[in-house]
Amino acid sequence: MRIEELQTPCLVLDLGVLRRNLTRMQAALARHPGLRFRPHLKTAKCLEVAALAAPHSGPITVSTLAEAEFFAAGGWRDQIYAVGITPQKLDRVAALNAAGADVKVITDDADAARAIAAHPGPLRALIEIDVGEHRGGVAPEEAPALARLLGPRLAGVIAHAGHSYAGRSVEEMRRIAEEERRGICRAAEAVRQSGLAVEIVSVGSSPTALHADQLAGVTELRAGVYMFGDLFQAQIGTHGFADIAVTVLASVIGRRPDRGTLLVDAGAIALSKDRSTEATPRDFGFGEVRDLDGRPYPDQPVIRRVYQEHGEVWPAPAGLRVGDRVRIAPNHSCLTVAQHDRYHVVDGSRAVIAIWRRIGGW
Amino acid sequence: MRIEELQTPCLVLDLGVLRRNLTRMQAALARHPGLRFRPHLKTAKCLEVAALAAPHSGPITVSTLAEAEFFAAGGWRDQIYAVGITPQKLDRVAALNAAGADVKVITDDADAARAIAAHPGPLRALIEIDVGEHRGGVAPEEAPALARLLGPRLAGVIAHAGHSYAGRSVEEMRRIAEEERRGICRAAEAVRQSGLAVEIVSVGSSPTALHADQLAGVTELRAGVYMFGDLFQAQIGTHGFADIAVTVLASVIGRRPDRGTLLVDAGAIALSKDRSTEATPRDFGFGEVRDLDGRPYPDQPVIRRVYQEHGEVWPAPAGLRVGDRVRIAPNHSCLTVAQHDRYHVVDGSRAVIAIWRRIGGW
Repeated sequence: MRIEELQTPCLVLDLGVLRRNLTRMQAALARHPGLRFRPHLKTAKCLEVAALAAPHSGPITVSTLAEAEFFAAGGWRDQIYAVGITPQKLDRVAALNAAGADVKVITDDADAARAIAAHPGPLRALIEIDVGEHRGGVAPEEAPALARLLGPRLAGVIAHAGHSYAGRSVEEMRRIAEEERRGICRAAEAVRQSGLAVEIVSVGSSPTALHADQLAGVTELRAGVYMFGDLFQAQIGTHGFADIAVTVLASVIGRRPDRGTLLVDAGAIALSKDRSTEATPRDFGFGEVRDLDGRPYPDQPVIRRVYQEHGEVWPAPAGLRVGDRVRIAPNHSCLTVAQHDRYHVVDGSRAVIAIWRRIGGW
Repeated sequence: MRIEELQTPCLVLDLGVLRRNLTRMQAALARHPGLRFRPHLKTAKCLEVAALAAPHSGPITVSTLAEAEFFAAGGWRDQIYAVGITPQKLDRVAALNAAGADVKVITDDADAARAIAAHPGPLRALIEIDVGEHRGGVAPEEAPALARLLGPRLAGVIAHAGHSYAGRSVEEMRRIAEEERRGICRAAEAVRQSGLAVEIVSVGSSPTALHADQLAGVTELRAGVYMFGDLFQAQIGTHGFADIAVTVLASVIGRRPDRGTLLVDAGAIALSKDRSTEATPRDFGFGEVRDLDGRPYPDQPVIRRVYQEHGEVWPAPAGLRVGDRVRIAPNHSCLTVAQHDRYHVVDGSRAVIAIWRRIGGW
């Protein structure tokens, strides 16, 4: 089958681009001998992608318990579920661990730490440290108090420099990566001084993982969106515009030559309403419209408006008629792929070489 | 089971509020005797909701072929698939019709009209008319040319006054509804003058369906989001803030009293990144945070920021701890429910009285 025969809208994943993105990360990691890499599968949510990004069932990061269960069933034992845990979710994690997995949870909360310590099932937890993003996490100095509550169930400390997404140069990314490293090391040190062992010292975001100068004191690195890339990451230096592995295949469903627009059948659901490129040098609306081979058009059309199932292309590429196909590069690939249940895999051509399932839900 | 026992994030649908919204629409429709109502199921995507909104397998509107197939299997024969058709999708529609359904397609394009006319299977089509939204559709004067291409497969004309979403008063909604009515009637008249029969003259959007003064010449009305409502529709006069039938149940996963924030486990996927209330008097960020019984908190907290699986609540309601539950009213219910695969149905209390499946995909 070829992509022009697929029902639209749907996802197309280019294996060659994916492999190139994985190789770029491997090259960056090679600068840090001994560091463990724990790719985040929140973007891909797919066993076949996991097999490439975390080969030999290597350590992984997940963002939902549905992912934890899916990947545990697929053979990935060593996981961190990197969203703050609630006491009510511990039974599901403990059940996975009792069945042979090693899913570690994270927390920045004393109530949750007490619930983890008191739970009858097998559980381990990392303390979430705020290294500047100010989303979740405690200050490094507050880590020992939580570590004492966790006691023997303490697995380590974890941080995510999500504020690297506000960086716009390699220098800034290096600075933020160093801030992330220093913050997590201060936390690890404080816990160790209180007499507890800290096995895992985990940091990461795609930009800081790629750009970090040195990672002394860190035991492992996490990153996720680098696998697929997107229009936002291309503009903060994670990769080039040709390195976006996933696109939404869409059909032209209407033409308005008088307005210079086209309508396609990929709208707010198929693309998501993410507008993250609003904050980057080039604003792509709701996505960049490319041709069926994934090449940009001369006028660089974008999805200017979205409705539930409609996307408005502007300016309209010449010569396209109703039924013709385009491919739309996403602003934020994690959210765009989230509404789809499979990848149509290609490798530099229009031939569909595989269909890979992805999961959703919680 | 009670909602406090559910895994989060998930959808809660209040049946009493849903019924009230359906009754409000019925009351508005009663002003137009003889008018057929064709509810749009793009929001609900659920057989049980369809049974309430389109009882006795009455006429419905759908936004994807997946919905068309789902509802046809459920017994709803008379459908309009209200997104511009492509030639490549006609086989799926014709297969449904050959099996007993009557799914009508829509188009505003000559190539598509020729493909509909030439297709070997059973097909009927409506011509999409632009009545002021400037999304899809031809001008009323252009309808006869498309009608001639469709010939005996012409089923009628259809318009959607989506620009009513920019209205902010009942007077404006009435004016836009009258503009919609006049535009579609001009198109129907023009086609009839060219010697062809126009069976269906279809208009609608939730605001214009509720507020239209008179609908002479129109044969049927469509509306969808009125069933569930949302924070946007509440601010353009479709319903009140207490009439939002669907909320996202979420758990507190972190507390930052120093910043006056909480984190919950409903983020960009569970809520969507829709920001439509940015354009209304009250901007609710990514949703309004309510208590477990669906009542607003005194300080009217909102989801101020979202990440893939995190939502930041601000200002934090007093007394909430990690594991406690809140319910989040959506900006745009069509997009928020789209990421979930079921509704947990309640009726004014915390008791879950049913679980209703919903579908996604295309």
